[in-house]
Amino acid sequence: MSEGRGAPDSAQDPASYPPPPRSPGPRRSAARSSVPQKVAEALSSQYGLNVFVAGLLFLLAWAVHAAGVGKRHLLSLLTVLMLLQLLWMLWYVGRSYAQRRLIRPKDAHAGARWLRGSVTLFAVITIILGCFKVGYFIGFSECLSAAEGVFPVTHALHTLLQVYFLWGHAKDIIQSFKTLERFGVIHSVFTNLLLWANSVLNESKHQLNEHKARLITLGFRNITMELDDHSPPCNCSPTRLCTALMQGMYYLYPFTIEYQILASTMLFVLWKNIGRSVDGGRPPRAGLRLRGVLAGSALGLGALAATLGVVAVYLVHIGRSKAKSEAALAMFYLYAIALLLLMGAAGLLGIRIYRVDEKSLDQSKNPARKLDADLLVGSASGSWLLSWGSILAIACAETRPPYTWYNLPYSVLAIAEKYIQNLFIIESVHREPEGLPEDVCTLRVVTVCNGAAPACSRPGDAGAALDAKGSPRPQPGRGEAQQEAARRERGGPSSARPAQFLEGSAKKRVLRNITAFLFLCNISLWIPPAFGCRPEYDNGLEEVVFGFEPWIIVVNLAMPFSVFYRMHAAASLFEVYCKI
Amino acid sequence: MSEGRGAPDSAQDPASYPPPPRSPGPRRSAARSSVPQKVAEALSSQYGLNVFVAGLLFLLAWAVHAAGVGKRHLLSLLTVLMLLQLLWMLWYVGRSYAQRRLIRPKDAHAGARWLRGSVTLFAVITIILGCFKVGYFIGFSECLSAAEGVFPVTHALHTLLQVYFLWGHAKDIIQSFKTLERFGVIHSVFTNLLLWANSVLNESKHQLNEHKARLITLGFRNITMELDDHSPPCNCSPTRLCTALMQGMYYLYPFTIEYQILASTMLFVLWKNIGRSVDGGRPPRAGLRLRGVLAGSALGLGALAATLGVVAVYLVHIGRSKAKSEAALAMFYLYAIALLLLMGAAGLLGIRIYRVDEKSLDQSKNPARKLDADLLVGSASGSWLLSWGSILAIACAETRPPYTWYNLPYSVLAIAEKYIQNLFIIESVHREPEGLPEDVCTLRVVTVCNGAAPACSRPGDAGAALDAKGSPRPQPGRGEAQQEAARRERGGPSSARPAQFLEGSAKKRVLRNITAFLFLCNISLWIPPAFGCRPEYDNGLEEVVFGFEPWIIVVNLAMPFSVFYRMHAAASLFEVYCKI
Repeated sequence: MSEGRGAPDSAQDPASYPPPPRSPGPRRSAARSSVPQKVAEALSSQYGLNVFVAGLLFLLAWAVHAAGVGKRHLLSLLTVLMLLQLLWMLWYVGRSYAQRRLIRPKDAHAGARWLRGSVTLFAVITIILGCFKVGYFIGFSECLSAAEGVFPVTHALHTLLQVYFLWGHAKDIIQSFKTLERFGVIHSVFTNLLLWANSVLNESKHQLNEHKARLITLGFRNITMELDDHSPPCNCSPTRLCTALMQGMYYLYPFTIEYQILASTMLFVLWKNIGRSVDGGRPPRAGLRLRGVLAGSALGLGALAATLGVVAVYLVHIGRSKAKSEAALAMFYLYAIALLLLMGAAGLLGIRIYRVDEKSLDQSKNPARKLDADLLVGSASGSWLLSWGSILAIACAETRPPYTWYNLPYSVLAIAEKYIQNLFIIESVHREPEGLPEDVCTLRVVTVCNGAAPACSRPGDAGAALDAKGSPRPQPGRGEAQQEAARRERGGPSSARPAQFLEGSAKKRVLRNITAFLFLCNISLWIPPAFGCRPEYDNGLEEVVFGFEPWIIVVNLAMPFSVFYRMHAAASLFEVYCKI
Repeated sequence: MSEGRGAPDSAQDPASYPPPPRSPGPRRSAARSSVPQKVAEALSSQYGLNVFVAGLLFLLAWAVHAAGVGKRHLLSLLTVLMLLQLLWMLWYVGRSYAQRRLIRPKDAHAGARWLRGSVTLFAVITIILGCFKVGYFIGFSECLSAAEGVFPVTHALHTLLQVYFLWGHAKDIIQSFKTLERFGVIHSVFTNLLLWANSVLNESKHQLNEHKARLITLGFRNITMELDDHSPPCNCSPTRLCTALMQGMYYLYPFTIEYQILASTMLFVLWKNIGRSVDGGRPPRAGLRLRGVLAGSALGLGALAATLGVVAVYLVHIGRSKAKSEAALAMFYLYAIALLLLMGAAGLLGIRIYRVDEKSLDQSKNPARKLDADLLVGSASGSWLLSWGSILAIACAETRPPYTWYNLPYSVLAIAEKYIQNLFIIESVHREPEGLPEDVCTLRVVTVCNGAAPACSRPGDAGAALDAKGSPRPQPGRGEAQQEAARRERGGPSSARPAQFLEGSAKKRVLRNITAFLFLCNISLWIPPAFGCRPEYDNGLEEVVFGFEPWIIVVNLAMPFSVFYRMHAAASLFEVYCKI
């Protein structure tokens, strides 16, 4: 299952890029350490997979109420894993502090500041959730095991130290003690993934219970209606406080889920970077500029406001009566169709701009970027699974209530929009940075402005007007532009390049508006499934066609990826925005 | 889901290897074609994933007897996908023939001859299975739709052309018309994966039905016992022929399953190679030498014979009576424990030999090798899931019949053996080839034999005695050996290297014996699960702890990967054997 999907690694870098400065260091040290690089990788990744697989089975056993597996055992396992990670992080931080005078290589692409910022934000909410859980434990302390109190405390400590660790060390490229480092990092990756799976499972059970209670009103009474109850067998002492805590917890879960997965992706990049040789070359420092994106952000904020309204109405109306449920579903579908149409159009426009302005892509090695692209395509597959399920259900159903017809365009658009958006994001993050270094720009002004090249004062398309004399060794990818410039200097006929239908700065402005709009729309579309507005459950059609159990299993497996997709796409679009 | 597991790509190649000959061709053409490399990759991979996801849902719908989805629809979909692939392959082969005078780059590592050989062998069995299916269709022709007759015929044609295609084009590195090629190749990859999933599903249903019939004898009567029946609603005209055909089909399915997955991995490597720049450098031509592996192959053949006996006894005894079933299970576990212990010991010995003979690993880019390593670790995860499930079940069960105790060491050993074997294979395939080219060897004889380097006439460890003068530009990874040789020449103290506890050729012989033994053992362990000897079903313990439905779902999802692991490990070990 691994690989396969996702944009694979570029195969061209060695040939097409000037070779990076020769640094035999890491390779030698790999040969000198007791276990070579590749084997250390396999050693640690197999350890991590075993931890993950065993943990998943524990989760499954708890979820299906397996004989002999209680919440107590599950939480104890997670606590032990977190404590192990805590110890390792303390050791790593301590050693780094002791060796702080050594100059160590860093991956400038990993752990961007905004990424660490959002991890911190979500971590704060996770700690608040931890406080809620401690309160819940105190309320039910008569009948809950100690593990349910120890777990949230450990988790809060773990969160604090992990955020500190990620701020200080997410960019590290570890070169020494590789095997031990690898084990620690991969242990951290899979511990976070297990915590993610645990939160997802809790959230899914909650949603499923709410759904079962609702479903009856839509007229599907013939489906088994057993609530999957894990609530403790005693009463909470201040009842109203307990109810408030339990209600509140489920509004905080979506943020915890995002925190865990973000942390594990950052740790995974750290793992991929172990023993890597650095290519040098910092990426141009991208800042957040908010000028000139009024249209995009206004539209996006409008979408966000509309989403909040639609979700509120949906949650109030769904499950009240059959008519109200159907109206809520129809409203949601119509709203989502309109939004997805706009997003698809924006994405297509962005791709069209890129197609007109042909440029070769940056193919350099960059584990963080590769992981981002793989995660985009991989997590989109979860949502495609749901959409294809809906399409198949509509095609096969025997009776189709009117509101289910909106489901068809919605599903088709959900597939198409993700397809387009992924293409847009992948092309954007692989574009070579627009601004050239200072010295090249000066050279351009001196040598090109004497010739016939137009628009020399525009920094945006410096590459297109670059003189062949400017860089004696032909830089790959700019060859065409150089030939073009040379042809112009010789007075020869210009090659048939498509006319630029948008000038440099206008093009940038349009792209930035598109990105801002898509960013806000993705945040908008993250909200409904994360907070319980799930038409895949509520419309009931798929459940009739596939059967209740199989469809619920499909939704519970695919939905976490679908929810993660929106947040991850928003994060990627934020990065694209800063880069344009 | 993508990435994460598996040995990730080497991050060192650009820095540590001499840069390959600069070939700006592919990059230029990527810039000139309408869609850049990365975007074309994402375009096609997303298309492929959508085809796959939609097909999987169709399979699921059929498997759960969804309303309105019959076998007819499923087979029609698969037939259309195969016809599309057929058309594309014909176009590709025709175009290649028209341009046969052009010199095109090839990936020497892709599509090894033995791999194409085994694909051919399995394809022949697949075509025989097709004939069986046509016979079955004729027998039941009264009540079967035309799709059930068209499908096996199309599949046979598809198999024939695909094997021809793989023989001729598996090594191609496609440089022109990239977008169309990418779509065709990825369509082929996922069509084969869907055919694989279809075969796996048929096989799983068959196994599950057999299991349900058996389970009652073991005393677990309280589990739902509905047979999942897809048999046609009329009688077959020559009854005995029909029974023979149906019996025979299930003995051929395992081979078809292997054919489909092998074909799709070869096509996937072809896809990864599109637009790649070639690193030059053919791998040394490895031949199959059978001298000096008597011990390993004798032990391995013994294991194979014992397996056949155990499987026969198991299949005869299981499900006859409770006592017979328990005896069969105990016999199987004891046999498997002994075999896994031997295999683990052999793997550890191999790793120990590598650790003593320190050498840097070949880190060059090689999509075929990377895919192999990822598949090994990925498919092992399927089997780890099952083993951890057994361990958890034993830990949590309330009553434990005596034979279930054998399950614990069996599961632990199954995890450990795969862990060790993967390390051995990954290190083996990444070792730099032992034999140096002729001219380097001559140089060595001339320059080194005058000095103090020992054992110059042994070609096996030429690298270890290579003089520094022999290669003016220090080849990475041999630095140590050169320093060592230089130190010896200066008469200085030798560095504290561990004493070689096995000489060069003896080391090779031991490694070759280990590999031959492991190869035959993996074939042996492929047989039991592929032909219906599945203690995970039959021992009943996991089903009591997890519940029947959840455990059956876990087994049906994980078992195909577990079966694939054995065949894939055998293939990798064959490659290792040829290389040593």
